[in-house]
Amino acid sequence: MTTLDTPDTPFAVVDAARLDRNIARLRDRLDALGVPLRLHVKTCKSVDVAGRVHAGGPITVSTLAEAEHFADAGYHDILYAVGIDAHKLSRVAALLRRGVTPTVLLDSLAQAEALTRFAHEEGIRIPALIEIDCDGHRGGIAPTDPALVRIGQALGDGLAGVLAHAGESYFAYTPDALRQAARNERDTVLAAADALRAAGLPCPIISVGSTPTAHAATDLTGVTEVRAGNYVFFDLVMAGIGVCTTEDLALSVVVTVIGHQPDKNWIITDGGWMATSRDRGTAAQAVDQGYGLVANLAGRLIPDLFMTGASQEHGILTSRADRPLPHLPIGTRLRILPNHACATAAQHDRYHVISGTTTGSATPVVDAVWPRHNGW
Amino acid sequence: MTTLDTPDTPFAVVDAARLDRNIARLRDRLDALGVPLRLHVKTCKSVDVAGRVHAGGPITVSTLAEAEHFADAGYHDILYAVGIDAHKLSRVAALLRRGVTPTVLLDSLAQAEALTRFAHEEGIRIPALIEIDCDGHRGGIAPTDPALVRIGQALGDGLAGVLAHAGESYFAYTPDALRQAARNERDTVLAAADALRAAGLPCPIISVGSTPTAHAATDLTGVTEVRAGNYVFFDLVMAGIGVCTTEDLALSVVVTVIGHQPDKNWIITDGGWMATSRDRGTAAQAVDQGYGLVANLAGRLIPDLFMTGASQEHGILTSRADRPLPHLPIGTRLRILPNHACATAAQHDRYHVISGTTTGSATPVVDAVWPRHNGW
Repeated sequence: MTTLDTPDTPFAVVDAARLDRNIARLRDRLDALGVPLRLHVKTCKSVDVAGRVHAGGPITVSTLAEAEHFADAGYHDILYAVGIDAHKLSRVAALLRRGVTPTVLLDSLAQAEALTRFAHEEGIRIPALIEIDCDGHRGGIAPTDPALVRIGQALGDGLAGVLAHAGESYFAYTPDALRQAARNERDTVLAAADALRAAGLPCPIISVGSTPTAHAATDLTGVTEVRAGNYVFFDLVMAGIGVCTTEDLALSVVVTVIGHQPDKNWIITDGGWMATSRDRGTAAQAVDQGYGLVANLAGRLIPDLFMTGASQEHGILTSRADRPLPHLPIGTRLRILPNHACATAAQHDRYHVISGTTTGSATPVVDAVWPRHNGW
Repeated sequence: MTTLDTPDTPFAVVDAARLDRNIARLRDRLDALGVPLRLHVKTCKSVDVAGRVHAGGPITVSTLAEAEHFADAGYHDILYAVGIDAHKLSRVAALLRRGVTPTVLLDSLAQAEALTRFAHEEGIRIPALIEIDCDGHRGGIAPTDPALVRIGQALGDGLAGVLAHAGESYFAYTPDALRQAARNERDTVLAAADALRAAGLPCPIISVGSTPTAHAATDLTGVTEVRAGNYVFFDLVMAGIGVCTTEDLALSVVVTVIGHQPDKNWIITDGGWMATSRDRGTAAQAVDQGYGLVANLAGRLIPDLFMTGASQEHGILTSRADRPLPHLPIGTRLRILPNHACATAAQHDRYHVISGTTTGSATPVVDAVWPRHNGW
């Protein structure tokens, strides 16, 4: 029997009970709001995780490698939500020819014209969403930008709708601010749809999403789909803005204590940034969690202990406010709860799956190993 | 013919001319100092890169996966330079039984006793180095610590020597400070060797190393080997402390421009932290290089442009001091020179190899694709 004591450390763990609870929570929310989910698989990159959500259902991907991997597993409605460049269109066309509907994203006339030219030459239709900027976070155009209608016209029958991502909602620190981010994401993308329709263009798809806004929205009238992906695992950044609690974190990294520096109040582990990533997403939050919180193997947080330093294969744990360190001898295994699940998961090529956090002191049993599909 | 215009972006590139120049530079230094190199392969994780240094020569590894991979490629003198835990000893023994000499590292009596017990039970000898702390950076014990001799005694015939790593040399910002770090690394480890010998214990191996101290040391009398690995690629952190210049950086990531936000002076690319890592190692230096500097495909730096933002698959480029952005239309390919080669390389599973930076505007030809071996 394999338990969390068995594999060589470091390795990634998924708590399936928390995973399923997180999945059910958003499903219930979206059912109540009457809007379907388009799971973003960029966090999990796992067919096994996606299967717990909706096997074969609509997904969002962040790379064409994800699109191809999920197509192999029977997913046929795939949105590639990173602005498309012409050189990637041959892989998009290959997906289309194997029966997948691969929708692409763009926010410029140059991209729209390149897409239309390519589709015409190939004799195919590649559906495209126009990216709408709702909060100045990254890409997209404003719904009032005259380029919007010109892009829609340039897409011709490729125009499939509009998309917004409230990236700034990761920095919304109150329930009110989160609800406002969700309202703004919806209102902005609906305004863009109205602008297209007012110009006589179709806009069947109105796509919104981020894990914070998906959990804060109270009215999604007019929206046709919600994208979210981080929520399957959650992380300390999400806990820091109040979207979840640390009890919801389904991803962790098992490490082993390999040394002590008592003069510095340090415990040294074999889990460095190679195992956790360099992500310091909580550094800007009210409570800086370093590189992560520390739990015992059963999953219970060890009070005041956190990971403050990382080199490639070494982690440094210490106590907050110079509290005395717990007695954790060499060989002790611990679980690090990460800042940013997307970044930490990306450092691993598989998940060790446990059925849940045990009561008592029993070491959780590993029920399965799920592969991850990294790369581009 | 494949050029840097061919593969789908993002992807990692190694400039073989710079790689070979970096390798020759340290080889010449160490030849002059009369000390052999034990290449650290944690940066490159590539048999092809190691082969340019010394095929089959002594290496340092940061994971047992590296050890096994390089053993497969004919390397038989392998130091695993992360504190050993008992649960990893069966893999060490397996290496030994296939003809490899796998040396391990430790800094506590508990580890030494576990190693000796294991070796006795298995009827084998596993050589071990005792880690010496020279600058308070991470693990190791002081040469004056009475535990040193006790650990040496507990190792019995497993005692192979002492090792120090001047991790704090990455924060030494002047040539004097770098030379001082190198002297201190050497002096500290020699003091430890003296303490062992004074107690009647052998100390055949005296191992020092870090890329900064390897390039700063002027006298390594008494040292038996130097470890370094980052130097094959170098990076902006190393350039920031003056160990190299940006003209020496052999690793970069090719990305494509996928959008613009003219109001914010942003160019958006398809290379986010998944391609560069989240490492912000220059943030604490005199010049913060963001997530990296930007070069054209031929490798020439674009003045004042740098990567200031990263989400998973998006990078944001902007100009320093609000200088006007260069004209880089959608579809333009660029190369990002990273803060930290170890972390950026770790995001990739292969290197596209070019023979060097071209003169004129020709796009470099890809001569080879070298695999990387990640994981544990």
